[in-house]
Amino acid sequence: MKTNRRDFVKTVGVASLGALVSPTAMGKTPIAIKNGKGSKLKLTFYPYDLQLTHTFTVAEMSRNTTPVVLTQLEYDGLVGYGEASMPPYLGESHKTVLKFLNKLDMEQFTDPFRMEEILDYVDSVEQGNRAAKASVDIALHDLIGKIVNQPLYRLWGLSPEKTPVTSFTIGIDKPDVVIAKTKEAARFKVLKVKLGRGSDKEMINSVRSVTDVPIYVDVNQGWTDKYKALDMINWLKEQGVIFVEQPMPANQMDDMAWLTQHSPLPTLADEAFHRLPDVVKFKDVYSGINIKLMKSTGLWEARKMITVARAMDMKILMGCMTETSCAVSAAAQLSPLVDWADLDGNLLIDNDVYEGVKVIDGKLTLNNRPGIGVKKI
Amino acid sequence: MKTNRRDFVKTVGVASLGALVSPTAMGKTPIAIKNGKGSKLKLTFYPYDLQLTHTFTVAEMSRNTTPVVLTQLEYDGLVGYGEASMPPYLGESHKTVLKFLNKLDMEQFTDPFRMEEILDYVDSVEQGNRAAKASVDIALHDLIGKIVNQPLYRLWGLSPEKTPVTSFTIGIDKPDVVIAKTKEAARFKVLKVKLGRGSDKEMINSVRSVTDVPIYVDVNQGWTDKYKALDMINWLKEQGVIFVEQPMPANQMDDMAWLTQHSPLPTLADEAFHRLPDVVKFKDVYSGINIKLMKSTGLWEARKMITVARAMDMKILMGCMTETSCAVSAAAQLSPLVDWADLDGNLLIDNDVYEGVKVIDGKLTLNNRPGIGVKKI
Repeated sequence: MKTNRRDFVKTVGVASLGALVSPTAMGKTPIAIKNGKGSKLKLTFYPYDLQLTHTFTVAEMSRNTTPVVLTQLEYDGLVGYGEASMPPYLGESHKTVLKFLNKLDMEQFTDPFRMEEILDYVDSVEQGNRAAKASVDIALHDLIGKIVNQPLYRLWGLSPEKTPVTSFTIGIDKPDVVIAKTKEAARFKVLKVKLGRGSDKEMINSVRSVTDVPIYVDVNQGWTDKYKALDMINWLKEQGVIFVEQPMPANQMDDMAWLTQHSPLPTLADEAFHRLPDVVKFKDVYSGINIKLMKSTGLWEARKMITVARAMDMKILMGCMTETSCAVSAAAQLSPLVDWADLDGNLLIDNDVYEGVKVIDGKLTLNNRPGIGVKKI
Repeated sequence: MKTNRRDFVKTVGVASLGALVSPTAMGKTPIAIKNGKGSKLKLTFYPYDLQLTHTFTVAEMSRNTTPVVLTQLEYDGLVGYGEASMPPYLGESHKTVLKFLNKLDMEQFTDPFRMEEILDYVDSVEQGNRAAKASVDIALHDLIGKIVNQPLYRLWGLSPEKTPVTSFTIGIDKPDVVIAKTKEAARFKVLKVKLGRGSDKEMINSVRSVTDVPIYVDVNQGWTDKYKALDMINWLKEQGVIFVEQPMPANQMDDMAWLTQHSPLPTLADEAFHRLPDVVKFKDVYSGINIKLMKSTGLWEARKMITVARAMDMKILMGCMTETSCAVSAAAQLSPLVDWADLDGNLLIDNDVYEGVKVIDGKLTLNNRPGIGVKKI
């Protein structure tokens, strides 16, 4: 399924001019391409593999690549870009995403502004498939922004300078590697440190031996004893940690409620948090939520999550998977509304396909391009 | 404070071309007019009195007119229309609205797309003044729609045919008057009947002597005994009533929670419900909420209310005050998202200033005009 980026970009470039992508032109197994005429929505998509700059280690596993599917939604000569990213632990893959996207009949829609109707349809076609759904949602939002020629943050009434700084993620590794990575990340104003595999204090001490910037901590469900978890959080607070993400397994709801009640730092739900109804459910279980477009099925539901979480006085982190600048820039459009951002997915790869949101002085910096604000590299 | 409509419309017509409204040209006491140049937001406004076709009676009082203030927000040659409506029981008046609007410095804003920033500023200038704030919010939304040349419902991704039918309100009166009004309202597919002044069964029986259409009931806090309230609701259900709005006084929260738990019909908060935080507070107290732009401070917060109420499985009625087609058309833009609509405020007056949303076969029917979809009559 691996794709040559240069060939792909070229092909997509042709598609964006309104021509059909010919499967044979790609020299690959035919990939479903839905074509419409004039005033119908036309969806095209292609698998791609992101090459990680560093091996990525979380509590459960390590990996060097992340599969994504890049989508395009074309209407009346304009093209919206979207992306599905499938870290393996979430259960989606090139195969499942392509299968899902092939099932969609987007040509039934002749008005892209009917976003609720279109996205309700996409959501109804099959359960799950959240990254696949997000890839359509992002492309549709990008398309709408291009039709009215405005960045999404402007259509949503937001002020671009309210974007937060973004953290840069330091994965679990040996102290010398952690120290080297932390030094490399000197341009970031905050770091997100992965914990949960027994080397917690060693990890934090390694980072702290190099920098005094604030630290976000992501335990990835790594702690199972709530008392030990609370002890560790108390220690982490003294080390300048801001919040603790998914400290305990998603299914230990009662323990999490206890921990949140006693914790001196905010606790955030990540692996436990998926769709909109979870926000209400987690009110007294976590202090906040980590919203990722690949979990929320895209921007449409993510915006609702933000509104509901705010109404319930919950904190919001906007996160991402390993992604190109496409999905990261889409998430960044919403970031003026959140407390914290961990939108570094595009900075962890060597073969980005898009240019979009930039990190300047550690801060997410939106541009004036319409829609999600990306262009092909 | 009464205004000659023809003079006003003419004057506003001039202002909409970008010229300043000259107080002397109106032949009235000078009204504050904020003027800006080119790329600043310019707010103008004028008081107006709506003439009610029928005397309007609710549990507390009767009246023949409703004071409103009509606003305009101008930017770069385009004009957004807004409106504040001030039924006396909500505490705002021509005087308070003009005073509030005079305090606003809208010229500090050079980008109307920064809606969150602008509306946060308007909300921060003084507490309360919700109708006055709504008049700016509606004008700003109308302006944005006109800048991108799209109706708001399209910018929000909604399908226009999903608007509900609207009810027509039958006020408390003697049986012969109620019967006459009900006959006049034959084109509506649902009626909203005011109760709560001791003549409840007589009111319903009068309506039912003429029509079999579904009935919404609005008690306007008129019942104080929860047991009697439940008995009445059980009877109302047999009469084809769909929901009961504000059955008990806003401050009887415990009684309302009990009543909602036992009621066979949904209960809706109206007088008890004002701003966004109330939605979460009322989760187990009412089955749903009546959103009115004059209470929510406009469309910005009303949209959030809808999102939060949906996440909490609450029902939504979109209501209005006695208003011109300006504020009613603004509310109608959101109505594809709600369960029920009571958007008849413009149908209860003799001197509307705008043409906008229409009621066709009882159903709210949106048009293709940009923004809130109104034009001057």
